[in-house]
Amino acid sequence: MEKERVIFLTNDDSYRSKGFATAIEIARQFGKVIAVAPDSPQSGMSQAITIYNPLYLRKVREEEGVTVYSLNGTPVDCVKIAFDHLLRDEKIDLAISGINHGSNAAISVLYSGTMGAAIESSFYNIPSVGLSLTDHDLDADFEGAVKYGTQIIEAVLADKELPRTLCLNVNIPNIPCEEIKGIRVSRQTRGYWREEFYQRTDPHGRDYFWLTGAFANAEPQAEDTDEWALSNGYVSVVPIQVDLTAYDQLAQLKKIL
Amino acid sequence: MEKERVIFLTNDDSYRSKGFATAIEIARQFGKVIAVAPDSPQSGMSQAITIYNPLYLRKVREEEGVTVYSLNGTPVDCVKIAFDHLLRDEKIDLAISGINHGSNAAISVLYSGTMGAAIESSFYNIPSVGLSLTDHDLDADFEGAVKYGTQIIEAVLADKELPRTLCLNVNIPNIPCEEIKGIRVSRQTRGYWREEFYQRTDPHGRDYFWLTGAFANAEPQAEDTDEWALSNGYVSVVPIQVDLTAYDQLAQLKKIL
Repeated sequence: MEKERVIFLTNDDSYRSKGFATAIEIARQFGKVIAVAPDSPQSGMSQAITIYNPLYLRKVREEEGVTVYSLNGTPVDCVKIAFDHLLRDEKIDLAISGINHGSNAAISVLYSGTMGAAIESSFYNIPSVGLSLTDHDLDADFEGAVKYGTQIIEAVLADKELPRTLCLNVNIPNIPCEEIKGIRVSRQTRGYWREEFYQRTDPHGRDYFWLTGAFANAEPQAEDTDEWALSNGYVSVVPIQVDLTAYDQLAQLKKIL
Repeated sequence: MEKERVIFLTNDDSYRSKGFATAIEIARQFGKVIAVAPDSPQSGMSQAITIYNPLYLRKVREEEGVTVYSLNGTPVDCVKIAFDHLLRDEKIDLAISGINHGSNAAISVLYSGTMGAAIESSFYNIPSVGLSLTDHDLDADFEGAVKYGTQIIEAVLADKELPRTLCLNVNIPNIPCEEIKGIRVSRQTRGYWREEFYQRTDPHGRDYFWLTGAFANAEPQAEDTDEWALSNGYVSVVPIQVDLTAYDQLAQLKKIL
């Protein structure tokens, strides 16, 4: 008999979020689920690691086929303690990060704790899928995310051609499931966030700022991008790599340095 | 008369670090210095942004040609509040992040708060230079960093061919300045960090973990990499881009999805 699969799960909204509970239901269709997730919301934590504080690992859920731990760290800390400590002797078949409450398309992949964890998982030669729904509501409707997330994970597990360092950034549009037109394999949209700082005075008379931003799409017409897919009713899938070298600049830099 | 240059400065070790004070001395050679730096150490904070907390900006130093603000946020928060609020009406000629106490070569570019801030600065069409010395000592010797940092910044400011979104990851080897052989324009070394978790019991009887990692270089012989440059006595310079799309995987993914 074939050995049961082991699916690792994490996220950035904490183990208490609806998106995480939904991801457990997706993951358990594919095998035994072991999860390590942050004990508090870690949105926007990117690839951050905890250097200055000790980490506490706590088992918070255990039932047939599902074990969940919480950690007082970042999403990447969760991945590291899973693969370098807790699951050191396990063979993990797949890592899922999410389901995130909010989009991680375009440049948001860089700021996202969900994608930080998915990227980190792939560093352990474990194919990883980051799942995000473009809706920040705590009680968001994950029906489309479940349907397409399941389909994408099935395809990844069945495929033999893609590299084991595979990492997918999957975003699901916030529209009724039956209106989603399908999946578009896409590239990361060019463009950046610009902030409007919300500025107020606290009860002690001190001025404070709060980040509120908007994404400025530099190529809204480009049909091969993830933002285009999402705003046209498709699920976007972007394969991720982490060599940040700007190869096209090497020659000019060698001239001047 | 030519308008005086404005140099923006930030880091991740906080405005109190020796590396930051050294960067101010480098930067003021080139023009007026305006700095926003974290009020506490933010190493390993990557591209993280603060979503759940208000941010307080405080002026901590003002003298002829140098103004320093501190912020209770991440390095990227410092950049955002600088370019989307504080310096909104200024034309900034260059951003410097550092000098970091510790290497940011290879995959460390992803975890680094120093490089997070340098990358974020480049999103504002400001050429940016992240400077790191491969020495964690609080009282590290920055002589080589000053010499080569100055030389690289001079070259960047003089160049007209490189794109304005230029972002350089500069690492300086921890050897006496006179032993440094020169500058090598390099690519990001392949390889990942693996953690050995330091595991102890706290005074309350609870087990805790602490990250302690080592970088596993996947290509130690590759002479075009930043790690090779550093371990052979050179300053490494890697130009950075942020499109994480794995273009070589698009075709296979389109087949299976």
